[in-house]
Amino acid sequence: MGEARYEVMPIGAVESALTDPAEAPKQGDEGGPEAWLVFEPGVLEGLHDIHPGDRIIVLTWLHRARRDVLRVHPRDDLANPEQGVFSTRSADRPNPIGLHPVEVISTEADRIRVRDLEAVDGTPIVDVKPVLGAG
Amino acid sequence: MGEARYEVMPIGAVESALTDPAEAPKQGDEGGPEAWLVFEPGVLEGLHDIHPGDRIIVLTWLHRARRDVLRVHPRDDLANPEQGVFSTRSADRPNPIGLHPVEVISTEADRIRVRDLEAVDGTPIVDVKPVLGAG
Repeated sequence: MGEARYEVMPIGAVESALTDPAEAPKQGDEGGPEAWLVFEPGVLEGLHDIHPGDRIIVLTWLHRARRDVLRVHPRDDLANPEQGVFSTRSADRPNPIGLHPVEVISTEADRIRVRDLEAVDGTPIVDVKPVLGAG
Repeated sequence: MGEARYEVMPIGAVESALTDPAEAPKQGDEGGPEAWLVFEPGVLEGLHDIHPGDRIIVLTWLHRARRDVLRVHPRDDLANPEQGVFSTRSADRPNPIGLHPVEVISTEADRIRVRDLEAVDGTPIVDVKPVLGAG
């Protein structure tokens, strides 16, 4: 790969009852639980205009993922033929950034409650964006 | 912010006639041009199952963005009241990751032609994912 490198600084982390990646649903709309997004003090000013009912996209850094994987069996099912990772939502990929469309339930000073988040407890959050059209 | 840091390695770059960020549309569906996604040799195996007509989300690292900004006037229009960056799609934000939903026009060995990409020439690509539902 090229020589440029960029540094991602987590802005917060997921607090969830989900702790085992093997038991997490593959996508939030397959039964992800409610969870908290808990943010670092230094970024709270950027969150002021997020409100209950908003649809947001949470970007995470899937810190347990393998970064040396380019082909996977989709959904970890060996019955599925191998595919290039870039046509799958596998966590294993060169830059393991997760995209999680969720709905805001409530907000507090340093945290946001959301529904349908499949990320496990402790997953670093790297960005939050509003949903626009197809994402 | 916390102490963990993660390293993003670009997997490719945008080749586009758009060179001036000030002239780029704010979102691809506002008239983004066709562009090439050009990939590093080391990741080509991960691209094999992307085909013309596919809807994909290109994740970029907006390397010209400011990372110390938490409030912005949406769409760079001073007539819009300031908002927290996390309820906007501003490029300026702590981790300037861009999300670009685009359609694949054609594929070649190391590149993919797409329509409606608002990222400027030379923007690093960090991931590609299939569109699923709301993104």
